[in-house]
Amino acid sequence: MFDVAVIGRGPAAVSAAVTLKIREKDILLIGEKPSEKVAKAHKIKNYPGLFDISGQELSGAFEEHLNRLDIKPVSDSIVTVYAMGNSFSLQAKSGEVYSAKSVIVATGVVNEKSIDGEKELLGRGVSYCVTCDAQLHKGKAVAVMAYNDVPEDETELLKKLCTEVYFLPMGNVSVPQGVTVINDKPLKIVSKDLFNRTLITEGGQFDISCVFIEKDAIAPTALIPGIETDGRHILTDRKMATNIPGLFACGDVAGKPYQYVKAAGEGNVAALSAVEYISGMNSN
Amino acid sequence: MFDVAVIGRGPAAVSAAVTLKIREKDILLIGEKPSEKVAKAHKIKNYPGLFDISGQELSGAFEEHLNRLDIKPVSDSIVTVYAMGNSFSLQAKSGEVYSAKSVIVATGVVNEKSIDGEKELLGRGVSYCVTCDAQLHKGKAVAVMAYNDVPEDETELLKKLCTEVYFLPMGNVSVPQGVTVINDKPLKIVSKDLFNRTLITEGGQFDISCVFIEKDAIAPTALIPGIETDGRHILTDRKMATNIPGLFACGDVAGKPYQYVKAAGEGNVAALSAVEYISGMNSN
Repeated sequence: MFDVAVIGRGPAAVSAAVTLKIREKDILLIGEKPSEKVAKAHKIKNYPGLFDISGQELSGAFEEHLNRLDIKPVSDSIVTVYAMGNSFSLQAKSGEVYSAKSVIVATGVVNEKSIDGEKELLGRGVSYCVTCDAQLHKGKAVAVMAYNDVPEDETELLKKLCTEVYFLPMGNVSVPQGVTVINDKPLKIVSKDLFNRTLITEGGQFDISCVFIEKDAIAPTALIPGIETDGRHILTDRKMATNIPGLFACGDVAGKPYQYVKAAGEGNVAALSAVEYISGMNSN
Repeated sequence: MFDVAVIGRGPAAVSAAVTLKIREKDILLIGEKPSEKVAKAHKIKNYPGLFDISGQELSGAFEEHLNRLDIKPVSDSIVTVYAMGNSFSLQAKSGEVYSAKSVIVATGVVNEKSIDGEKELLGRGVSYCVTCDAQLHKGKAVAVMAYNDVPEDETELLKKLCTEVYFLPMGNVSVPQGVTVINDKPLKIVSKDLFNRTLITEGGQFDISCVFIEKDAIAPTALIPGIETDGRHILTDRKMATNIPGLFACGDVAGKPYQYVKAAGEGNVAALSAVEYISGMNSN
């Protein structure tokens, strides 16, 4: 069991991880890759102490900081965080399950819109994790809505298990071989019964068992059952505490302004709040 | 009239100034000197992107950042901030009076304790500003409680105007010539009538007109009449807004944890809140 799981790879997550490591906590820092939002920034002029550096340089400085403290991020995505009372269980896209006493959510803000039914049917016909859920839909038809490239092994698994794989490219993504490409806008997912769903697009409808949605970040309400939000942001107090004891949020996911140093500052606060929370657990 | 007056010289103030300058605001950045708390830090390990730098290096990086953006801090102390409705009036120790549409308080946390009567008699027998108030006590006795060295010109002015200058060194400070040194612990200040006060020490009492208190930072409640605090901290929301419209607080004065990157992050948020506030004023 980790002391703290930090979900994300941007400035808030890096800052939280750094402070936790200095406080000698056993941490999991997990996210697909270093924040692309940072790396792609042209010039950053208001990160105090580092004037006029490029996003790539700032991103490099963050990675170097992790390196120097011997923090090794895990390249994977967390798809669900379950609050278990005295600990948290985190399900990763790879199939791995992690547990931690406290969680810091620093996933950034989610830009992709949900489609109708996505939130409501999550876990009952909508999934963000092929590895976790493909077996449940063996012998049935499934759809894949891809905002990002889908890893080859995930496509292979679906093709092997399912009778049909409808593939909906939701942007500039690679289209895998051996799938049925639907170049149409998905509108909603409706549940027919316990095992059958219909995906309705602008031009048609498809009987399926599940829609796998492949995107960079998952809406907080889907990632963390029971989390309180205000639109796309997790509600926090000044200590970055959420409504779930032991779970903290920081950076863009905790609200505007979307700024690097604000995110780094909040990561630091969330880390120290998590330290305080764990110390409170231990003394009970 | 400045758009925004930023009071302080530490990470929160520097961060606020930098973001305001980038947003093309006309700013006053005012404080006695760059934060000594930063400069004296041995090694800082959790300011993301700048691993294991000394306080002096971080302080240097902040000064360089200001330089590169052509921000020239004013070396002076603000002793009172008055909210005037649509603007703020800021009285400086030098006697200068500044005005600004919005104010960001980033003064750090005040360590010196107040003595009994200090807050209650402020402006009526207690003063933080020799330049501002010495003339009011011409021909009378005054006391100086010195937590810091008192500038020579201030001592000279008091000696010239007042019948007696009782000098109470409150720590390791230089004792000026021509004053009556009282090596005793001050306990309280009481008001006898409109023009006469008594300073009570452990070993005696002194009839005076005013006590001048020379210290690094002034408690928020003395600095800003009407400000809401929680102990030594100014109460703010997540946008760093205080109970006074247009006045924001950030860094250590806005609460724990006392951390550089937390302060810098809050400075950024306060700056953007001030920008939003001014833009709202202009559109009314």
